[in-house]
Amino acid sequence: MPLLRPQPLLRTALTKPSIRTYSSPAQTSTSPFAPRHLLSIADLTPAELTTLVRNAAAHKKAIKSGSVPKNLLGALAGKTVAMTFSKRSTRTRVNESLYDTSVVISSMVSAIVARVAAHADVANLAKHSSVPVINALSDLYHPLQTIADLLTLHEAFPTTTSSPSTSLGLEGKKIAWVGDANNVLFDLAIGAAKLGVDVAVATPKGYEIPSSMRQIISSAASSTSTPGSLTTTTAPLEAVHNADVLVTDTWISMGQESESAARLAAFENFQITNAMAEQGGAKEGWRFMHCLPRHQEEVADEVFYGPRSLVFQEAENRLWAAVAAIEAFVVNKGRIE
Amino acid sequence: MPLLRPQPLLRTALTKPSIRTYSSPAQTSTSPFAPRHLLSIADLTPAELTTLVRNAAAHKKAIKSGSVPKNLLGALAGKTVAMTFSKRSTRTRVNESLYDTSVVISSMVSAIVARVAAHADVANLAKHSSVPVINALSDLYHPLQTIADLLTLHEAFPTTTSSPSTSLGLEGKKIAWVGDANNVLFDLAIGAAKLGVDVAVATPKGYEIPSSMRQIISSAASSTSTPGSLTTTTAPLEAVHNADVLVTDTWISMGQESESAARLAAFENFQITNAMAEQGGAKEGWRFMHCLPRHQEEVADEVFYGPRSLVFQEAENRLWAAVAAIEAFVVNKGRIE
Amino acid sequence: MPLLRPQPLLRTALTKPSIRTYSSPAQTSTSPFAPRHLLSIADLTPAELTTLVRNAAAHKKAIKSGSVPKNLLGALAGKTVAMTFSKRSTRTRVNESLYDTSVVISSMVSAIVARVAAHADVANLAKHSSVPVINALSDLYHPLQTIADLLTLHEAFPTTTSSPSTSLGLEGKKIAWVGDANNVLFDLAIGAAKLGVDVAVATPKGYEIPSSMRQIISSAASSTSTPGSLTTTTAPLEAVHNADVLVTDTWISMGQESESAARLAAFENFQITNAMAEQGGAKEGWRFMHCLPRHQEEVADEVFYGPRSLVFQEAENRLWAAVAAIEAFVVNKGRIE
Repeated sequence: MPLLRPQPLLRTALTKPSIRTYSSPAQTSTSPFAPRHLLSIADLTPAELTTLVRNAAAHKKAIKSGSVPKNLLGALAGKTVAMTFSKRSTRTRVNESLYDTSVVISSMVSAIVARVAAHADVANLAKHSSVPVINALSDLYHPLQTIADLLTLHEAFPTTTSSPSTSLGLEGKKIAWVGDANNVLFDLAIGAAKLGVDVAVATPKGYEIPSSMRQIISSAASSTSTPGSLTTTTAPLEAVHNADVLVTDTWISMGQESESAARLAAFENFQITNAMAEQGGAKEGWRFMHCLPRHQEEVADEVFYGPRSLVFQEAENRLWAAVAAIEAFVVNKGRIE
Repeated sequence: MPLLRPQPLLRTALTKPSIRTYSSPAQTSTSPFAPRHLLSIADLTPAELTTLVRNAAAHKKAIKSGSVPKNLLGALAGKTVAMTFSKRSTRTRVNESLYDTSVVISSMVSAIVARVAAHADVANLAKHSSVPVINALSDLYHPLQTIADLLTLHEAFPTTTSSPSTSLGLEGKKIAWVGDANNVLFDLAIGAAKLGVDVAVATPKGYEIPSSMRQIISSAASSTSTPGSLTTTTAPLEAVHNADVLVTDTWISMGQESESAARLAAFENFQITNAMAEQGGAKEGWRFMHCLPRHQEEVADEVFYGPRSLVFQEAENRLWAAVAAIEAFVVNKGRIE
Repeated sequence: MPLLRPQPLLRTALTKPSIRTYSSPAQTSTSPFAPRHLLSIADLTPAELTTLVRNAAAHKKAIKSGSVPKNLLGALAGKTVAMTFSKRSTRTRVNESLYDTSVVISSMVSAIVARVAAHADVANLAKHSSVPVINALSDLYHPLQTIADLLTLHEAFPTTTSSPSTSLGLEGKKIAWVGDANNVLFDLAIGAAKLGVDVAVATPKGYEIPSSMRQIISSAASSTSTPGSLTTTTAPLEAVHNADVLVTDTWISMGQESESAARLAAFENFQITNAMAEQGGAKEGWRFMHCLPRHQEEVADEVFYGPRSLVFQEAENRLWAAVAAIEAFVVNKGRIE
């Protein structure tokens, strides 16, 4: 009989969780036999992140040409992956319920892919799950999107020389994020820091990256010898300067609907346009990314549907990011090599 | 990188679409490499329609006796078919969203089976999809239902001599449709015209087949040398005269709920009963079809549950119609032979 | 063409159904060729119930050690099982609709697993289905839960000598049910009676087992030579005396939400605690079961999360109960051996 007693940490989830609590896999493991989870790009070393992206690229190429990689063939046959999508935060529910759910679901499946509102929910799920938990979106992180975005950049900026397998060849490239500082940016910034990619973020005053998250991104940078830099500004033209890729996302995330009017006003001059890229001085071959769904206020049609846009390739790459993540965390039980 | 620019036609979808626009596959193809879609029975030649029904019959017989046809065995293994069911019309949404959705979904799956409110939605989906789109119901057409209905008639009226494989042996039979002129009737009338089956339609005054749809049905008839005829009336007894099969459907389709009272009044004498068939002079061996779900006002229990009823056989045949359509459009990429 | 006429019994479902009507498989079969259904534990002989639990235990052990039993391997490949979940009772709908649905769904699938509000719904479904129907919860019975509970007890109280395969070794054990007399209790009491397990039920006054259901439980007891006894009381301490296992469930089932306040008051002293077990004089090694989801009022944390709790093992066993039931009723077409 398993020893199943409510964990002290579980109780504290009823209070506002500290962001720091959820930044690294070591903190979510409760024993050496606990499964490895993917809650944030912060859970990965630079080498592991590179390998995940390279594996995603290899599987994409192989499967699209009709051959399923041997190690994937049948690896998931007969296995069940639970997909959970919750919009309500468990902070408003009796907390034991989430604990009970985690233990029960994880006793029946090989992995849990969870999309949650509050990151604390997926972190708690991981804490009590006997199988790997993959974060498919929380209010703090979106690791599968970052893997898809790095794959897209890897495809868009192919290395000229045969680059070592420890690199995606993106060192020194610059990403300009123009818009709201949200979960998609957080994991992208962490991943970019790890891979030596610079990130410049332009947000309106009052919508900056929270300082606790800046610390997490800094800590990610400190895990590599040649980290990418993170700069912030309230001037889009400044962020765009010398950028290789311009990125944005919705200005109004789930749960922020009541702030719509205020946000639309605050972000008024943040729509990405060809003029913005030109005036700001983006690199000649600049490209555009957006994780969808898109709203017209964030980016003009000329950019979104134009030849610089990578958005549909980026969307397809979510599939390949998921394949690589499931291979790494479910099939290979957390060994990423 | 694919050239992805908004199509001019896409923009016009915000205005009321012309029914003519969506009647033939040639008009939905944008390049010789575009996939072939099934949006309406109008998309099929008489020979192709016959083959689809014959294939459905063959697969039904084989699979029910325990042997899966070789060409189907494993043909869909590892493939994903997206099933989309929308009740809202995209006419009320920002249109790019549907364009974006089409491109993204079709990059991840082998086919899209879509059930929509406005036919323009599935037509637009097809226009921008890189994989086959199968219409699983729109406000104008219901091709899988027509294939199932023709299979049901083929089973109910077996040919006495060994009929050629280019025929279902239904030439000269008469269908009486008594009720509302809706999507199910439209595709059935198109299919019947192509196969030499006569159709008599009785609707109340004010509920007739729209003239634009009559033109599409006429144009279907002109594609065959011995087309079935289409006659219309407001007198059920007249339509029923000499009919081999009586057919009806709900009087109140989705989206017409606010017209319920007016419609129930208008269709008052349109309930199919044994007395109606007798007084009208239906053929001695007349049968009954209904695509379900059924409401009591449309047809009396004595008919619906009686020995003349084909309704449950017809319902099962929807499965075999889908098998044949997926084989033709997904496995065989639009070659129907 | 199948002869499909509305059954007289179907009509009577519009009136309040007699509980007796649905107690045995013989009453749901309409012909010697009808499939065998699992609507209640009452449908099983003691030997069949024992075999189902032993098969569930064997499959659990085999599959968890990585080997899928040969007779299950591929047995369900290519088959479709319909899962239906209705909360609304069909008593409030036009009844033919359920009849139509049963016939149509059963023509397309190999089995129907149905969760319903009113037991009459799943009983009617079974009456008209051409494939096996498995009750996955109704307001009267919950057979899969009982199989899971007996498997849990079988694991928690292993037999010391090599017990014969006709026994789970639970004869003479005592279950104390403290709480509401609901569907979970009904099938558990029927199963316990068949296997020689005693059941003591403590409910508040006014919440006793209905007399019609007591008759069904008695009739289950009469089907075995050494049945378990059923005793009832309004005093929890009395029920708990000498019990091997304490069991409870929610006090407010679906559909009883409006009675919440009255029920919470009536069940005030029924929360299972360590003190209750001690004062009542439960056996030294007593264990605890609950079918989840759990609410704090029914059982204290010290019990629910304590070392005596079997709840998560019990929850996992629902999976193995379902595997054994599908094997017996779908793969083996009702032969349980």
